[in-house]
Amino acid sequence: MEDKKSNKMAGKQSILFANPPVIIAGSSVVGKKEGEGPLASFFDQIEEDPMFGGTSWEDAESRLMKRAAELSIEKSGFRQEDIRYLVGGDLLGQLIATSFGIADLEIPIFGVYGACSTMGESMALGAILVDGGYADKVLAVTSSHFAGAEKQFRFPLAYGNQRPLATTWTVTGSGAVVIGSGDMGEETAGKNNKNGVVKIKGVTVGKIVDYGVKDSLNMGACMAPAAYTTISQNLKDLNVLPDYYDRIITGDLGYVGKDILIDLLKQDGYDISSNHMDCGIEIFDRNTQDTHSGGSGCGCSAVTFTGYIMQKLTRKEWKRVLFVPTGALHSTVSFNEGNPVPGIAHGIMVEAC
Amino acid sequence: MEDKKSNKMAGKQSILFANPPVIIAGSSVVGKKEGEGPLASFFDQIEEDPMFGGTSWEDAESRLMKRAAELSIEKSGFRQEDIRYLVGGDLLGQLIATSFGIADLEIPIFGVYGACSTMGESMALGAILVDGGYADKVLAVTSSHFAGAEKQFRFPLAYGNQRPLATTWTVTGSGAVVIGSGDMGEETAGKNNKNGVVKIKGVTVGKIVDYGVKDSLNMGACMAPAAYTTISQNLKDLNVLPDYYDRIITGDLGYVGKDILIDLLKQDGYDISSNHMDCGIEIFDRNTQDTHSGGSGCGCSAVTFTGYIMQKLTRKEWKRVLFVPTGALHSTVSFNEGNPVPGIAHGIMVEAC
Repeated sequence: MEDKKSNKMAGKQSILFANPPVIIAGSSVVGKKEGEGPLASFFDQIEEDPMFGGTSWEDAESRLMKRAAELSIEKSGFRQEDIRYLVGGDLLGQLIATSFGIADLEIPIFGVYGACSTMGESMALGAILVDGGYADKVLAVTSSHFAGAEKQFRFPLAYGNQRPLATTWTVTGSGAVVIGSGDMGEETAGKNNKNGVVKIKGVTVGKIVDYGVKDSLNMGACMAPAAYTTISQNLKDLNVLPDYYDRIITGDLGYVGKDILIDLLKQDGYDISSNHMDCGIEIFDRNTQDTHSGGSGCGCSAVTFTGYIMQKLTRKEWKRVLFVPTGALHSTVSFNEGNPVPGIAHGIMVEAC
Repeated sequence: MEDKKSNKMAGKQSILFANPPVIIAGSSVVGKKEGEGPLASFFDQIEEDPMFGGTSWEDAESRLMKRAAELSIEKSGFRQEDIRYLVGGDLLGQLIATSFGIADLEIPIFGVYGACSTMGESMALGAILVDGGYADKVLAVTSSHFAGAEKQFRFPLAYGNQRPLATTWTVTGSGAVVIGSGDMGEETAGKNNKNGVVKIKGVTVGKIVDYGVKDSLNMGACMAPAAYTTISQNLKDLNVLPDYYDRIITGDLGYVGKDILIDLLKQDGYDISSNHMDCGIEIFDRNTQDTHSGGSGCGCSAVTFTGYIMQKLTRKEWKRVLFVPTGALHSTVSFNEGNPVPGIAHGIMVEAC
């Protein structure tokens, strides 16, 4: 099969796959609170133990990620040794949830960091590796854990700090997908995969966008400009209007960031108010779960994708989705030195098969 | 041009490019101590000010990285807007040297983390993006800063702790390369690039390898098993012996790690004692610079590559090099919780043109 190099670059920042890779299987493992939210019925596993059987919050997250990784491989019908490369990361300094979580799998790994946009980055690179013929199967995975994230970025849980209304709640969850070649034919189905597959048609790689927002407890405002930049560029690169997509789904802007995003896109003449969705808004019930602006964390977009969004696509309720995990490039060191929180967002074009 | 997918996967973990991408230009910016070492004459810029004109160690590293990134673009003869994607990262939690260092460049970015192996990971992904036709030019960059690394991973400088003899000294430096398509013809030369180019023939993606070493002040011992695994797999995947390469060059094993690596490879019947080199050993003078086991950090392998190794290749003194940046997946949190320090190493096959 020919695959002309020049065909794959679309516009300024986007890639369109000539022969779109497919997501053979996705897994979603979440914590108790996520299992009490509106998406509960879509998740594969809800774990009541916040420690996931481990001895520290970091250990808990490692175990959580490993479980999601193994489950996605199992659901794909392939074996661990069939996965050529793994692309993944998490929010913790030096990606320790990942380093300790998936070492046992013994799969060669590209460690990535894009804050809460990591699932987008992992899926983009995974699709590139498969489409380009560098791997036949790639696992993309990410995770976050409420307690580990609070410990690292904010306050110890025992301190019981008040949370401003603009804050989001870090999702305890891990999502993983197995990406395979679009031309693998019947093999794609896998022996355990009765649920159908989803195509990755293209990606829009995000830039770091810094509007100077310094409030790390309002990450929606920090990330909305990045989501705006990526979505607007995707529409320009593809020369389409927002209604090309059944849904444009951001990762974790929450209620505050959603409004900013919709306003920013109007400046470019794009109205996404009728087909925008945000994983952070969907995953928790605002009225009963006390999560203020919504959910956040790498796991938020990951499990909403592997749980909810994939099901909508495989059931053909949606045909085309622009999935845009959003990340706040936030560190306590940079924050304490008075720096703003830049954002980044990667766009993944997913379609029903 | 046809590019059959199945040709690119070599053995279990390696990729061989059908039409190898080229490194159009490389840049090396280092601190004062590195500028007093044996490789001084090979570096592009030696900066006397440890703050690089900034206000904090993190700010210093951001400025250092930005300077290396801009210099490599300038040396390539292309413009900033010609670079389609950037792949890069650093050692600091949440990659803040990178987030703040290269945001101004406004290039879509894949943030990566592989500890001190990051230059290998960045170059591997950069070469894949170019070879696969997803980008025409990609910038791969990484950095480290002695003071920022000590502050994050060990002790405040003012504490004046004693350093065991197995410790390495984090290099203050940043290296960047511009990778372009192997078939871009005369354009590769660029108007400023009089120095010739280097081919990236293939890569071997590393696994996380954990031998249970818990001494974070002996990173050579933590990383040597990962270097061993990657080098041994590269030789097997390509079905070659060590003398296929003029040099097999690890990132920052230092004197302690070098010995372990050579011993481990002997178990597999490979003797690399005559053609092994370690960037951490080359960059400092053991007798006069008080750096104990050698240099380390993302910048160590990056500047040794862009400074020294690239010159050896463009001058045809070496024909083939296996460049193996090594990383210790170390975090103070995981260390303080009693965990070992796993290692990772990515192999990049570089050749003279």
